[in-house]
Amino acid sequence: MTTKIDLSFAFEAEDPTDVLLQFEAAAIPEQTLGNVTCNLGDAEHIARVSAQDDIGERIWVRTQGRFDVEYSAEVELNRILTELGDLERLDTHDLPGETVKYLFDSRYCQGDKLQGFVSDKFGDREGGAKIVAMHEWVRDTFKYTPGVSDANTTGVDSFLERRGICRDYAHVMIMLARASAIPARFVSCYAPGVEPPDFHAVAEVFLQDPTTEGGGAWYLVDATDMASANDIVKIGVGRDAADVSFMTSFGMTEFKEKTVTVTDDAAKQG
Amino acid sequence: MTTKIDLSFAFEAEDPTDVLLQFEAAAIPEQTLGNVTCNLGDAEHIARVSAQDDIGERIWVRTQGRFDVEYSAEVELNRILTELGDLERLDTHDLPGETVKYLFDSRYCQGDKLQGFVSDKFGDREGGAKIVAMHEWVRDTFKYTPGVSDANTTGVDSFLERRGICRDYAHVMIMLARASAIPARFVSCYAPGVEPPDFHAVAEVFLQDPTTEGGGAWYLVDATDMASANDIVKIGVGRDAADVSFMTSFGMTEFKEKTVTVTDDAAKQG
Amino acid sequence: MTTKIDLSFAFEAEDPTDVLLQFEAAAIPEQTLGNVTCNLGDAEHIARVSAQDDIGERIWVRTQGRFDVEYSAEVELNRILTELGDLERLDTHDLPGETVKYLFDSRYCQGDKLQGFVSDKFGDREGGAKIVAMHEWVRDTFKYTPGVSDANTTGVDSFLERRGICRDYAHVMIMLARASAIPARFVSCYAPGVEPPDFHAVAEVFLQDPTTEGGGAWYLVDATDMASANDIVKIGVGRDAADVSFMTSFGMTEFKEKTVTVTDDAAKQG
Amino acid sequence: MTTKIDLSFAFEAEDPTDVLLQFEAAAIPEQTLGNVTCNLGDAEHIARVSAQDDIGERIWVRTQGRFDVEYSAEVELNRILTELGDLERLDTHDLPGETVKYLFDSRYCQGDKLQGFVSDKFGDREGGAKIVAMHEWVRDTFKYTPGVSDANTTGVDSFLERRGICRDYAHVMIMLARASAIPARFVSCYAPGVEPPDFHAVAEVFLQDPTTEGGGAWYLVDATDMASANDIVKIGVGRDAADVSFMTSFGMTEFKEKTVTVTDDAAKQG
Repeated sequence: MTTKIDLSFAFEAEDPTDVLLQFEAAAIPEQTLGNVTCNLGDAEHIARVSAQDDIGERIWVRTQGRFDVEYSAEVELNRILTELGDLERLDTHDLPGETVKYLFDSRYCQGDKLQGFVSDKFGDREGGAKIVAMHEWVRDTFKYTPGVSDANTTGVDSFLERRGICRDYAHVMIMLARASAIPARFVSCYAPGVEPPDFHAVAEVFLQDPTTEGGGAWYLVDATDMASANDIVKIGVGRDAADVSFMTSFGMTEFKEKTVTVTDDAAKQG
Repeated sequence: MTTKIDLSFAFEAEDPTDVLLQFEAAAIPEQTLGNVTCNLGDAEHIARVSAQDDIGERIWVRTQGRFDVEYSAEVELNRILTELGDLERLDTHDLPGETVKYLFDSRYCQGDKLQGFVSDKFGDREGGAKIVAMHEWVRDTFKYTPGVSDANTTGVDSFLERRGICRDYAHVMIMLARASAIPARFVSCYAPGVEPPDFHAVAEVFLQDPTTEGGGAWYLVDATDMASANDIVKIGVGRDAADVSFMTSFGMTEFKEKTVTVTDDAAKQG
Repeated sequence: MTTKIDLSFAFEAEDPTDVLLQFEAAAIPEQTLGNVTCNLGDAEHIARVSAQDDIGERIWVRTQGRFDVEYSAEVELNRILTELGDLERLDTHDLPGETVKYLFDSRYCQGDKLQGFVSDKFGDREGGAKIVAMHEWVRDTFKYTPGVSDANTTGVDSFLERRGICRDYAHVMIMLARASAIPARFVSCYAPGVEPPDFHAVAEVFLQDPTTEGGGAWYLVDATDMASANDIVKIGVGRDAADVSFMTSFGMTEFKEKTVTVTDDAAKQG
Repeated sequence: MTTKIDLSFAFEAEDPTDVLLQFEAAAIPEQTLGNVTCNLGDAEHIARVSAQDDIGERIWVRTQGRFDVEYSAEVELNRILTELGDLERLDTHDLPGETVKYLFDSRYCQGDKLQGFVSDKFGDREGGAKIVAMHEWVRDTFKYTPGVSDANTTGVDSFLERRGICRDYAHVMIMLARASAIPARFVSCYAPGVEPPDFHAVAEVFLQDPTTEGGGAWYLVDATDMASANDIVKIGVGRDAADVSFMTSFGMTEFKEKTVTVTDDAAKQG
């Protein structure tokens, strides 16, 4: 399946300002990119650096005045899809070193706070079946509600509030997973079914990979159910939303506008 | 200079339990290790994995009953020492990809909360001179006070409280640095002057490296002034204390005892 | 039924220090006091002031050195007991002025955070039946566990943790009630069944009083189930634990010891 | 001096909803009211109840559809004005019972968090001189900035942020006072110099009353400097902003519009 992404946004900085951008579909084995165009406005300085876990890139920009970004790409997804509920957990002591940080608490995701709840509610399941049960609980309990959360809203706030947007759903899924010692990270992404069209965010959990002996792999979980593993185009990953903002400004900027369009084959031919 | 480390500790787990340990002096270029002995108790499973930023290792243990750790090592430090106050800052847009995560907020270190304070107080300085001024401010303002902080104490709490232990001093230094867009991380370490003898924690900030063209390097800052860059033996690094606990238990364990002895040449011959 | 209370405690202040004490059974209509003895140590200054909602008194003490408190009393309880589940709610707009503050958020009890949860879980019930359902939910979900909470633990923390002591149970009950616009306050008290013997804390909610036309009354709820409305001797009330500490020191004091003994008729003759 | 107040606002409730209003100039000795008109829309139920500390009244409304409030009044202020800096503190142990709750932490004002700061910064002053120094520190350090705070912003947040609106300034003043054991409360009010015209909020502290033997009185402090004790018309008081919202809705309402006009003699004749 091919997913077509069109993005444009702009901001304005009165003074010369450093801005960090991360909006491109990541060039990773499971995502084959084609027809990529990325037009960045004029800037004093532009540099690409690798992003977290080497998934995707960030772009440093130093600019003044209006800065426009136009990006489009076609992405062929060749992700191996799996029935999450069938996957076993990896024993904690078998977790590879690079996944360990995703067990620990982060700015927005304090998994330790939910250990009592997770043990009561999901204590009788393990691995993928536990993640599926958590996903279902979030689906049944939460109401997708724009406007109730902001950049200060933590996963604990969202867990209590039972409302929020994709970012908040992802935070809650991540906390639930970490609370039972399953590594979980935050994925910023594109997906065709997002309504209203915008960037999207989902969780990713680390479970056994049935195709390797004793190994593990990351599996996508979209607790909002707006996207699924076979139509999510990853931009980047991090511990939570603090790590993968599409734009971080180190100084005053005024955000101007943003248009995100994501379509897949079916939609295009439909 | 050679630093001699002796560590022993023990814990007990009634049921088979996964425990993550990180206590060894890291094998990194600036630290030459000799006479290392590491005796671990009997365990069902022991595995080493690389630690954060590939500095040092973590040890996964699955064990039941009493588990003893005996570790000793001699470490020759060949760290290049620099007058921090002379170092320039790296332009934010020149920061390498792997340092970016140390600009962002973490569990215990929300740098964004201190931006107003940092801009008022330290806005007239840059780079190393700013870090030195922050260090001096912490030194003058804080009182080293065991018993007022615990595992729930955040950097914001410590900033307000103006008291705490090495972990809290490091959190405050990290927040101050991040609040002015200087990458800062948490370093767990050994140092001879720590009183009472125990593990130690300091901050590390990323500034220009005068020996390379346009490059940067990490520089140690111990706001408690108990140690200095030429006698700190690094164990591991992370975003804050959440990442580099010497022992993280995934299940119930009872901690038994701990002895840390760190001496340097002078002390040994004194 | 007569309840016999014996209390002794002591503290020491190096410098002259102001201390606020609140430990006496409140002289209120539902509690008839007899054989009261209250011996306070020597102090530069002792003054009694009325406590919150005019329930009980606080004692201001200015003292230096060791200060001993010996208190005993016999309390006849003539509280009207009611089946909570039968009580109707008072319409919010009929709440008397003095109960309104107990609808609002306080230091430890942010009821607003639980509105989503309360509406999902208890939305189909009203008044006393709702309080009974909340009490049962806490009873079924929480585990009485000393040592997991401290003076920083909020009701939100306890709600997530699902463990704690009487203070934490009371905070959670108060938040649940406030989240559905039922006034709720914190009651510090004595009760014979408390194990280990100590001061106790329960919640109190404001519901319809079936004996008056359109009026309301406060009803005790002990979510720990260690005490019941017919054996609780009230000391004082407040918005949460911040308001009714038995001892608040305005300066450094060292707490020495405390013995609380509470027995009722049955126990004495048993 | 006479202050003229004109207020109008409206809200709409789809379903029958309970709403609590508190917007009238309080009828208290220091404020003589004249030419009061208060037109409330049609409602199923309207009831007045006394407000906190018996200062002013709250109005319970049960209504559906659009509800309009039109209020105007002329207020003669006969408040005794004092040079705050000359006032002595009341010894903590001499504080009357009804002021004690204003020493304790509340939802938005955790004075205990600032004890270290207050002791370092203002430890060499007492009473009114200390309050004046705190006021000056806030004036010099903070920048009045609409849009950076919201209903979740605590006094600790504002203290760190060093920006905010009147509500935030009041919270910080209250915390600073409580941190040195001076009772402090939140006052919602009208004042002529508020820009843009709106409700206003200030702090009030309890210090010695030089006109009575050993007694105390409440004194207004507006850290924003937009108003002063001789032109503030009190509406109500509470522990912090949680207690004195001009409108609290127990159900969904849509706020429509609000106009606040406050003029004093000088302005009217100017």
